[in-house]
Amino acid sequence: MALSGGRNVAVVGATGAVGEVLLRLLEERQFPVAELRPLASQRSAGSTLAFAGEPVEVQQARPEAFEGMDFVFFAATGGLSRELAPEVARRGAIAIDKSSTWRLDEQVPLVVPEVNGEALEKHRGIVASPNCTTIGFVMALEPLRRAVGIRSVVVTTLQAVSGAGHPGLEELSRQLEAVARGEEPQARTFAAPIAGNAVPLCERFLEDGYSSEEMKLLHETRKIMGLPRLDVSMTCIRVPVPVGHGATMLVETERPLSPAQAREACARFPGVRVVDEPGRDLFPTPRDAAGQDDVLVGRIRKDLGSDRLWLWQVSDNLRKGAATNAIQIAEAMIERGLR
Amino acid sequence: MALSGGRNVAVVGATGAVGEVLLRLLEERQFPVAELRPLASQRSAGSTLAFAGEPVEVQQARPEAFEGMDFVFFAATGGLSRELAPEVARRGAIAIDKSSTWRLDEQVPLVVPEVNGEALEKHRGIVASPNCTTIGFVMALEPLRRAVGIRSVVVTTLQAVSGAGHPGLEELSRQLEAVARGEEPQARTFAAPIAGNAVPLCERFLEDGYSSEEMKLLHETRKIMGLPRLDVSMTCIRVPVPVGHGATMLVETERPLSPAQAREACARFPGVRVVDEPGRDLFPTPRDAAGQDDVLVGRIRKDLGSDRLWLWQVSDNLRKGAATNAIQIAEAMIERGLR
Repeated sequence: MALSGGRNVAVVGATGAVGEVLLRLLEERQFPVAELRPLASQRSAGSTLAFAGEPVEVQQARPEAFEGMDFVFFAATGGLSRELAPEVARRGAIAIDKSSTWRLDEQVPLVVPEVNGEALEKHRGIVASPNCTTIGFVMALEPLRRAVGIRSVVVTTLQAVSGAGHPGLEELSRQLEAVARGEEPQARTFAAPIAGNAVPLCERFLEDGYSSEEMKLLHETRKIMGLPRLDVSMTCIRVPVPVGHGATMLVETERPLSPAQAREACARFPGVRVVDEPGRDLFPTPRDAAGQDDVLVGRIRKDLGSDRLWLWQVSDNLRKGAATNAIQIAEAMIERGLR
Repeated sequence: MALSGGRNVAVVGATGAVGEVLLRLLEERQFPVAELRPLASQRSAGSTLAFAGEPVEVQQARPEAFEGMDFVFFAATGGLSRELAPEVARRGAIAIDKSSTWRLDEQVPLVVPEVNGEALEKHRGIVASPNCTTIGFVMALEPLRRAVGIRSVVVTTLQAVSGAGHPGLEELSRQLEAVARGEEPQARTFAAPIAGNAVPLCERFLEDGYSSEEMKLLHETRKIMGLPRLDVSMTCIRVPVPVGHGATMLVETERPLSPAQAREACARFPGVRVVDEPGRDLFPTPRDAAGQDDVLVGRIRKDLGSDRLWLWQVSDNLRKGAATNAIQIAEAMIERGLR
């Protein structure tokens, strides 16, 4: 993508897991950066990052740092984004927020550009990027919806530890080392040991026995797809995978769609790649998705007792699930002349 | 359980992953063993195992070795069991087979004692123990079926590498070591690397895009539960967990059942333990199930858009999923006076 004219870009949370990937992707995608301003907590301020081959000093994330910016990416905690995103909008810049803070706010577009880029037109200075799990999910659903409409989905996610950022990655490494030494793994970041295990809780429990992650998947999907009554039944599980969220999805469509037609619809959809040749043992895995921007879809087959379709979907939770999608939002805004 | 009178017991595949657990469990459960005869391939014959504190020599698995036995457990390949189980029956002994060979044979009871122990009455010398994934699945379903009847289930399994025996365990260890050294993991036993990954294929693909493991889950469940039309929609995934199969299950019941009633029904059912206190972050994990005979059930909650119930179930695939169930079959046969 060649976008002309330089933009001033700030990244809040530049030293976190998503922030780091975001900086790398701004370079990789040749995003038209005039000035880059990495921002972080007071603790990280003063340290130096490399961007486009040059050292850049990390500054403290505070309102004054947003002066003169075009885009401010938030790859930080929700608290910071609640406080600071309005300061970005007030200064006439655009906050693109990766936290959950603004996602369900009616004034804030929640966008996956391939799915609902048109929602950007109504922005008021803050745009939200969905949860990493939601992004892969709607990317796999949208081709089917456009082909024949969808009615309901039953989904089980298998989520990578980097969904919890650096602390999640460090927890898995530390526990794997402990297990290799014959010791018991100690849980800190997750509610139970994750090495050699599967933990049926992502984030935290809400009062009705669902996790906050599960409820995000429901409400964000409905908002992005513009289907406020879409039936989503879900369980979210954390697995000992560093990068790459996976999900099994059983999709009830409005009109029947054969597996071959579903494969074709997915293959045509931008940002989705079909990897589905059972005869050659070909299917996508989280490891295949890691480092890729595409959402990979496979194991497309008809349910045995109904017209529903099964599929299995994987995506890089730090890239398309986070940094890539945020940058694509900025790119789409430039293309639409919104900046 | 105190069962009087010693039985002569042989174990085919005594040196494999399930065989080893079986020997340990015969001791642990104080199964009334008069003579123990460990059997294996010619390659392992002549080696020595410890049983009940005594060394026992491994003999070659061949028809003559079954003379005088009461029970012969098969924890070996399907080929061996196809050839040798009829030899056991011919000698008046009972073959309890862990392979998939006889499971769907109409002359052979397929038994999870807590669920359909009565099927043992019709045995003709061969009894099949179900697939490890099926056992946990029907153990979690049966309490709900007895309470209000069940109509359909959507299930995603997260299966441990030891489902593929020692080679699966060795593959995970070897790959984790390679990854720790910064090398690429090489897949041999599974169709893709399993360390830090999730592989959406258990066993092998059949022609319609389903795996053999998935079809076992359907057909075995229908036979065990005596529900030949039960709707089971499934995807089976291999995860980097040494021991302990997990599954998310969305169950449509005949009549509505509240989560509290479902918890009570499961808690009352022998061999099932409910671990389900979201308020205290309590849920079962594969790691909790490993080394236990109980099937652990948690995350019981109502589907958001229907009367269906979600639950998450874990069990030790080498114990209840294999060795424990096989021994329980023998125990049930003794109790029923069938031996």
